[in-house]
Amino acid sequence: MKKHTCTFIMMAGLYLICSCTRGTPEQKKIPVETVMVIHGGAGVIRQTEMNGEKEQLYRDKLQEALMAGFNLLKEGGSSLDAVQAAINIMEDSPLFNAGKGAVFAANGKNEMDAAIMDGKTGQAGAVTCVRHVKNPIDLARLVMEKSEHVLLSGEGAEEFAREQGLTLMPEEYFFTEYRWQQLIRAREKEKQMMDSLAQNKSGTVGALALDRNGNLAAGTSTGGRTNKRYGRIGDTPLIGAGTYADNKSCAVSATGHGEYFIRGVVAYDIAAMIEYRGFSLNEAVQEAIHKKLTRAGGSGGVIALDARGNIAMTFNTEGMYRGYIRGNEEAVILLYKE
Amino acid sequence: MKKHTCTFIMMAGLYLICSCTRGTPEQKKIPVETVMVIHGGAGVIRQTEMNGEKEQLYRDKLQEALMAGFNLLKEGGSSLDAVQAAINIMEDSPLFNAGKGAVFAANGKNEMDAAIMDGKTGQAGAVTCVRHVKNPIDLARLVMEKSEHVLLSGEGAEEFAREQGLTLMPEEYFFTEYRWQQLIRAREKEKQMMDSLAQNKSGTVGALALDRNGNLAAGTSTGGRTNKRYGRIGDTPLIGAGTYADNKSCAVSATGHGEYFIRGVVAYDIAAMIEYRGFSLNEAVQEAIHKKLTRAGGSGGVIALDARGNIAMTFNTEGMYRGYIRGNEEAVILLYKE
Repeated sequence: MKKHTCTFIMMAGLYLICSCTRGTPEQKKIPVETVMVIHGGAGVIRQTEMNGEKEQLYRDKLQEALMAGFNLLKEGGSSLDAVQAAINIMEDSPLFNAGKGAVFAANGKNEMDAAIMDGKTGQAGAVTCVRHVKNPIDLARLVMEKSEHVLLSGEGAEEFAREQGLTLMPEEYFFTEYRWQQLIRAREKEKQMMDSLAQNKSGTVGALALDRNGNLAAGTSTGGRTNKRYGRIGDTPLIGAGTYADNKSCAVSATGHGEYFIRGVVAYDIAAMIEYRGFSLNEAVQEAIHKKLTRAGGSGGVIALDARGNIAMTFNTEGMYRGYIRGNEEAVILLYKE
Repeated sequence: MKKHTCTFIMMAGLYLICSCTRGTPEQKKIPVETVMVIHGGAGVIRQTEMNGEKEQLYRDKLQEALMAGFNLLKEGGSSLDAVQAAINIMEDSPLFNAGKGAVFAANGKNEMDAAIMDGKTGQAGAVTCVRHVKNPIDLARLVMEKSEHVLLSGEGAEEFAREQGLTLMPEEYFFTEYRWQQLIRAREKEKQMMDSLAQNKSGTVGALALDRNGNLAAGTSTGGRTNKRYGRIGDTPLIGAGTYADNKSCAVSATGHGEYFIRGVVAYDIAAMIEYRGFSLNEAVQEAIHKKLTRAGGSGGVIALDARGNIAMTFNTEGMYRGYIRGNEEAVILLYKE
């Protein structure tokens, strides 16, 4: 019996060593130096409505955002700087529902939200219902680093932005004909009692980064939902709902129908399934999106990244604009299901 | 060896059965019909500054709130109704930092937040930065039941309140000499570069209920922090941070230094430790407050309740106004550590 026991223990030990080094299929074998992952929203333009020229515009801008972050990482920059840089590119583009391209609320105004979280320290900053801040993710970072608060809203948040010398823009800056027409259409549809949800294309942007020091960061920025009620806050600026980062588990940025992400505390739930249930990153993300979110009737997706460089990009919508680049591999940009 | 194995399996089975039926020390043996738990804030008036008359005022009001909810439960009312009724009593009292007694932000205004969550359906509603709503918890419930959103803020939230016929009050209603003096003192202290945190007595109120149908509900209502930055949002209205309920795990309402509760996603973390790590309610709450929150440097406490009627009331401050009543037991009201 003693011999059997020894053999069993040896085999179990060997199995454990093998499990750790070889990784499950979705795990990376070799520790990677730096990783950048971004999204430009789930439930976006339908594949059938997309043409080659439009698609190229999106691909180019996603590539530009991805590389803006990744180049910083390669130079030894922090994951926070990389996340912010990638999101800034998307905020400054009219293609996405964040910053310049923010959608219109029901009252014809733009209201933007953003959040950023540092996976090393657990510090976080977020803003909601800001209307004149050119780059809401910059303000979220200032809230994290220069205030004693985590979440600031509306005029109070903009007052803080002014104190910190951030660029404020007149409302006209955020006016884009495309988003305005989207509101007009949404209003018309509402009159016809049609399901307004189908019109609420998200286009929220997000970024995750793993830097040379092994630190994760996550950030998300959005203009909310077209024709939403004035003052509605979605999941984006809520730590644990739409944005979360912890070196111990993972970094997550979500996009989609925010109310479902708030009730499900989706971003933190993914981290909790990794930390408490021992799920791999991919298992946790699959469970969160294809089981829990889908069962609840919610639509959307997440990008997720752990400190070993594993990446997950999952959605239950027709598409999610997304991209990643890892170590010395080629950048990958995807718009629809592959 | 076979005999040994059988004996082992039998003993293990017996142990499991014993564990399940006898319960750990903090578990209730007998399923209880209805339970009500409330808090009136952690980090409140110091025991040394409290006198007999003042203490009686607090005890009486806590008892009134507790019984307002519990009486509804006994009559077969829902946990949501009970939570709302208990919080209404505390919101209408100047003794607590919610509704009538809300503290003043740095700009001399009152800004109130509230949230409610249904443990059966996972539905939730919350409001933030409202300034004229007499009972913010009522508005949170309307957001849950009459809107497609979870979280509404500021003027947009008040516009919705008007549409729903809720009572709005002029700003003067929320003026209490005590809170005003607290702001004056906080401002003076700030000038003297003293630690403003010590002055930020919370006094947030919260309630949890378990009804006859075995459904949990949680609610929290607050005026925020004295001398806080205008537009600051704390943990109270954030589902998963200061308020959470799920029949599968537990209901939680938090009070304290909100930023720490947001970053730690404390309310949902307690639920996740129960669901994913198999912790008892008490183990989860101890871990969340005395380990995680304390290590992070945060102060505050939570009340928690599970669907078997187990109660936990834990804080790392000098006191937390709190009370509970379960089945046919006597109501218990506590102010400080016991």
